[in-house]
Amino acid sequence: MKAKYKTIQGGVTAPKGFRAAGVHCGIKGGKDQKPDLALIVSMVPAHAAGVFTSNLVKAAPVRISQKHIAKGRAQVVVANSGNANACTGEQGMKDALDMARLAAELLAVAPHEVLVCSTGRIGVNLPMENVLNGIRAAEQQLSDAGGADAAKAIMTTDKQPKEVSVTLTINNREVRIGAIAKGAGMINPSLATMLCFITTDATVSTNGLDKALRAAVEQSFNRINVDNDMSTNDTVIALANGMAGNLPLTLEHPEFLKFQEALNFVTLKLARMIVRDGECVSKFVTVEITGAASDADARLAARAICHSMLAKSAFYGGDPNWGRLLCAVGYSGARVDPDKLDLYYNNVHVVTGGAPRGVPEKRMRKVTSQKNFSIKVNLNVGDGKFTAYTTDLTEAYVEFNKGE
Amino acid sequence: MKAKYKTIQGGVTAPKGFRAAGVHCGIKGGKDQKPDLALIVSMVPAHAAGVFTSNLVKAAPVRISQKHIAKGRAQVVVANSGNANACTGEQGMKDALDMARLAAELLAVAPHEVLVCSTGRIGVNLPMENVLNGIRAAEQQLSDAGGADAAKAIMTTDKQPKEVSVTLTINNREVRIGAIAKGAGMINPSLATMLCFITTDATVSTNGLDKALRAAVEQSFNRINVDNDMSTNDTVIALANGMAGNLPLTLEHPEFLKFQEALNFVTLKLARMIVRDGECVSKFVTVEITGAASDADARLAARAICHSMLAKSAFYGGDPNWGRLLCAVGYSGARVDPDKLDLYYNNVHVVTGGAPRGVPEKRMRKVTSQKNFSIKVNLNVGDGKFTAYTTDLTEAYVEFNKGE
Repeated sequence: MKAKYKTIQGGVTAPKGFRAAGVHCGIKGGKDQKPDLALIVSMVPAHAAGVFTSNLVKAAPVRISQKHIAKGRAQVVVANSGNANACTGEQGMKDALDMARLAAELLAVAPHEVLVCSTGRIGVNLPMENVLNGIRAAEQQLSDAGGADAAKAIMTTDKQPKEVSVTLTINNREVRIGAIAKGAGMINPSLATMLCFITTDATVSTNGLDKALRAAVEQSFNRINVDNDMSTNDTVIALANGMAGNLPLTLEHPEFLKFQEALNFVTLKLARMIVRDGECVSKFVTVEITGAASDADARLAARAICHSMLAKSAFYGGDPNWGRLLCAVGYSGARVDPDKLDLYYNNVHVVTGGAPRGVPEKRMRKVTSQKNFSIKVNLNVGDGKFTAYTTDLTEAYVEFNKGE
Repeated sequence: MKAKYKTIQGGVTAPKGFRAAGVHCGIKGGKDQKPDLALIVSMVPAHAAGVFTSNLVKAAPVRISQKHIAKGRAQVVVANSGNANACTGEQGMKDALDMARLAAELLAVAPHEVLVCSTGRIGVNLPMENVLNGIRAAEQQLSDAGGADAAKAIMTTDKQPKEVSVTLTINNREVRIGAIAKGAGMINPSLATMLCFITTDATVSTNGLDKALRAAVEQSFNRINVDNDMSTNDTVIALANGMAGNLPLTLEHPEFLKFQEALNFVTLKLARMIVRDGECVSKFVTVEITGAASDADARLAARAICHSMLAKSAFYGGDPNWGRLLCAVGYSGARVDPDKLDLYYNNVHVVTGGAPRGVPEKRMRKVTSQKNFSIKVNLNVGDGKFTAYTTDLTEAYVEFNKGE
């Protein structure tokens, strides 16, 4: 099947009617003055949908944005990196609200039309003078080519900015979807994860946008992990401003699926970029579970492998230590018959009926020493399946995260 | 309260009527001929209880031992290190049974009175000629001072052998309990873990021994973790041969609790030794959750901290990064009100109402840079509590487990 969309340049400013900026305002330290504040603005009010961390310890901006987005409309996203504004008490709530209020004032919208996001260290109050000056500077620099700057301004330990944009046709009108994301650490697949901002000039009903976003997140960000920690700040936001002029994409629109597929493509591509750019990782491993009693069971088995420090250490060394993988499947909580397990490294069939097929280690290692390989486990007890994307665990990750 | 038991020497051969041996038979490679086969024998039939891994991918010896112990009696434990005999198919089952059969023949007991255990690499068949010769050699060397040799022979990546023995008085008779254990990697608190063999000359009813063992494991081995992987081979076995001559310790025996306390002491001491000697660890961290909605909730919160790679990396570096700890509590699944959380490093009160109290980093770091410290989190929503014991995550752990 031919893809019904085409990749283009521009990120969040690829769709019509969106401007963005990224500036350095002094939240991040260091002499290199890395950008740390992003602003994304739709020229007109947009339908908005969001998926937020299910961590009960939610950062102040998450609490504010969840409240604001409840109305289904928004026009502005203001996001800072370098400080998560999480576990910051009442001051943190006030600071997040002040960010929204200033952006609203400068852009002549209501405060509830502004969504606020933060990412970075937990437990430290924001340097609000810098942040407010940053919002003023960013507003001055808003541009319809500013997507790339915004992508850089939300980075924390990411090595690469992450942007995707596509074009497709709905009702014979050109529709664009743009998105940026940041990842790196505290990346865990059990829900919305990291920050991701999606813009589109499509006309999409509030309900349609919400459903499409949830489905897109489920098949992308909810299937990745770097480490096993679910952040306090994970946020995925979609803004649809309708400037493409198509008929509203409701769930009944004949081309809704086409829009969904493009959104799925954008989010999965960003999700994979996040895995590849995970903190100090050296491998990209696809874990594909089939033959499970249910999709939920397949997910449990995939998660257990993705979360195993022993499995991830073996990925790092290129060690085809499949015993650790079957061990993880065994304690995953999924229904498992140990005598029915099949395991493959790429297409090399290594284990059958839970026991080794005698494949020479050299042949397995030829696969596992690659930067990018897949593990397939067939539980052979049903039709459930799930695919997850993960990384290795490196000495550098530990060194990086042990603090100064 | 004065402890009602006293620590003595002797390990599993401290109680009357137990002999043991540990030999090298060539399962482990290397020039240093490390011991890799242990035999523990009661002179008379003993009541037996066991707790085994809840991993569905169980090693062959676990399957055999579970079947044998079902009758509640056993006289012999044969255990090898260096090879887990897990994921080894029908050949693995035959090999485990052959180990039991040979030990039974040499010691003139029924095969079902022999319990078999293995620990080491998964997915490789046992070198059975070596193993059977090892059983013969061990039988020749059985001695009532052989506990220390047996403790060495079950080690894998352990740096230290682990033995505990105590004496107490029941019905004015001296009763002894001895135990050995091995740990190091694939150590996860969600159930019985690692290998542990407990002997006692107390007379204990089958039911009493089973209940006492389960309670002891719950408060010890089920509360520790090194990494997050639940092994395929975890086994805790207790043999009670009655040679102390006390009245049978049933659940109604007035001194049952005294026996239980001594058994708790022995198992908790071994559990802590396993954490301290975890693979490539440098810290011992006690995680104490109080004020949870239930004990089960407290356990979830403790586990989330113990399993967090980010928290464990911070332990390694002595970084007082309490935000990562609250983040883990938030996604643990426990009921959490983020605005009610209190957190302490030892007795330094760091977080109140979910926000920092402004304790200088230097003061926190004075605690977290110690080899041994505690984290206390009060969820302030109920009376549930749970304490777990964990370690840091080090670069050396990753290096050690990445394979050659």
